[in-house]
Amino acid sequence: MAERGDREAFVTLATNDTYALGCLVLGNSLRQRAQTTRKLVVMITPGVTQPMRNQLARVFDMIYDVNLLDSRDAANLQLLGRPDLSVTFTKLHCWRLTMFDKAVFLDADTLVLQNVDELFDREELSAAPDAGWPDCFNSGVFVFRPSEETYDSLLKFAMSQGSFDGGDQGLLNMYFRDWATKDIARHLPFIYNVVSQAFYSYLPAFTQFKDSVKIVHFIGATKPWHHPYNTATKEVTPLPETGHNKDYLQIWWDIFMSFVQPTLDPSLGGLIGELASLSLQTGATFGGSQSHLSEQERKLNWERGQVDYLGADKFENIKEKLDKSMKGPATSSKTYTSNPFSTSIPVSTTSTAKKPVAPKNCCF
Amino acid sequence: MAERGDREAFVTLATNDTYALGCLVLGNSLRQRAQTTRKLVVMITPGVTQPMRNQLARVFDMIYDVNLLDSRDAANLQLLGRPDLSVTFTKLHCWRLTMFDKAVFLDADTLVLQNVDELFDREELSAAPDAGWPDCFNSGVFVFRPSEETYDSLLKFAMSQGSFDGGDQGLLNMYFRDWATKDIARHLPFIYNVVSQAFYSYLPAFTQFKDSVKIVHFIGATKPWHHPYNTATKEVTPLPETGHNKDYLQIWWDIFMSFVQPTLDPSLGGLIGELASLSLQTGATFGGSQSHLSEQERKLNWERGQVDYLGADKFENIKEKLDKSMKGPATSSKTYTSNPFSTSIPVSTTSTAKKPVAPKNCCF
Repeated sequence: MAERGDREAFVTLATNDTYALGCLVLGNSLRQRAQTTRKLVVMITPGVTQPMRNQLARVFDMIYDVNLLDSRDAANLQLLGRPDLSVTFTKLHCWRLTMFDKAVFLDADTLVLQNVDELFDREELSAAPDAGWPDCFNSGVFVFRPSEETYDSLLKFAMSQGSFDGGDQGLLNMYFRDWATKDIARHLPFIYNVVSQAFYSYLPAFTQFKDSVKIVHFIGATKPWHHPYNTATKEVTPLPETGHNKDYLQIWWDIFMSFVQPTLDPSLGGLIGELASLSLQTGATFGGSQSHLSEQERKLNWERGQVDYLGADKFENIKEKLDKSMKGPATSSKTYTSNPFSTSIPVSTTSTAKKPVAPKNCCF
Repeated sequence: MAERGDREAFVTLATNDTYALGCLVLGNSLRQRAQTTRKLVVMITPGVTQPMRNQLARVFDMIYDVNLLDSRDAANLQLLGRPDLSVTFTKLHCWRLTMFDKAVFLDADTLVLQNVDELFDREELSAAPDAGWPDCFNSGVFVFRPSEETYDSLLKFAMSQGSFDGGDQGLLNMYFRDWATKDIARHLPFIYNVVSQAFYSYLPAFTQFKDSVKIVHFIGATKPWHHPYNTATKEVTPLPETGHNKDYLQIWWDIFMSFVQPTLDPSLGGLIGELASLSLQTGATFGGSQSHLSEQERKLNWERGQVDYLGADKFENIKEKLDKSMKGPATSSKTYTSNPFSTSIPVSTTSTAKKPVAPKNCCF
């Protein structure tokens, strides 16, 4: 078993320090809570700083640097003309981890509640249905077999076909297109990738099956680290509009405060620094709120198909922005932040403002 | 093929005149739009009036009367002690249609867009995943094999196990519990039961696959017949808070106005009478709104697991009602309509108001 454990790995991805926080909690959930016997790998882009990289090295067996827009091969060269696909393609690098026979990819916003080592008995490509369109699998959790050949094939496919949602989920569902119809064994039970908002979707089912849930996925723009946390009561406060389940948020924060926060460097800036300083204040409250959610993060979510349709990205908000822009210079100086593809653009108070571009996945 | 067509049927259910309207549109969608070669059956309870029954007879090959709370057999007798299950059990009667070898059940709030006769090649129990918890199938559309034995077995099972959501969906998912894991052929593609709100769940997937959609399901408390319709422009107005797709609502109304409305009796009362009078008024607007949604209908939806979590039945509304009631007499005279189990109860302006009961499916 030990030998097999060396040839199998859980793999995640951090594109910046904030998502690296998620990876740290995920890694600890796998090690401390779920007691996995398998290796842990984190892929990182240059957006992750050296101090955070050092943190990741404490938890993960391997840090794998990925940097798409170089010219290591022909496919990457072509990518220079398609920067919109770069985020998508970052995840595909997991197929290059050929030192492993089998691997399970987990998004940085997932959390493992119970041991899931049995996933390595599944074959590529196994994944759980996406709750939004259940004939698609959700690409936040999937079993795969690393292979340079598959990696090349995926890149070529992406270059010729694109992705129907602009993210890895659309691409992988197109590439592994027989997932919905061919083999029930490739359907991971939903308990391996339960959206934290399942409470709202079908409450009785959530109530019935919640004790079986093994992996929870905090989809949407607001992540566990954006929530207010009180160090005196050691309780997180759910933000109701996000729909995240309080129990799951609490588990995330319990792991964070036990294993991650004590080793963070308070001299770091931004969210990380704020979190690192938490224990220094007696009964301090971390005032995490949605204001922490950067436009960059929302763009990333959007590109990953994790669009907050009921929140900031809801149809009305985006339509309002498009409508206002179509009509020319607006009279209001209000800043619209609904369209992740035109970040930080106040809706034009002058005619020189950039014209927003409709997200290519939208059908309106 | 003609012979096979006689031994196979689409089956639906009307528990009152309003749902019978849905059945009439569904039946016409199967006949006129989808050109099915199979028989059409509607099961009705005594809640459907004689004039509506006459309407149904124009479209359906067979009207099958069901009345649960009689004492035709031992199982029904036991039911007298479990009136909460009566709505659930009504649907189960479809298994008694043993004059057919194979059948497809369709809820009255579904609409068939393209021919789906190929469904009869599937085996019992085939159904599409529920978008809320996709390891459950949605019981709005399913392929089954009529059998008295199965009917009896289902009743016994229900009596001993109940239903985790208090409706037929929870019961059928418990009975056919290997659906999620055993045979991919029993997984109908999602296009056979697309929730009309799929737009909000995963827009890119909806955009990608919408031309393939064969059956649409108007889940939630607000149905197509509750929407405003303008007879001059022949257009329906979507109610944005319900999330129903406008194209689907328009198809429903096109079928209704072409095949159903002209034969309705204007002397009938309520919603039906109002709809029947539509063509008599030049350019009249049917001001359907959510006020038409009776508490009885919302209760029915709730019991079928079709809870409008993001609308009237959302957590905050129900919690607000419970909180107010716990605290005793409220100072406001506002009428809360969020809890379908305590219909028409203005939140108490006097201390004699009935105490609302928490829906049994709720875990809060």
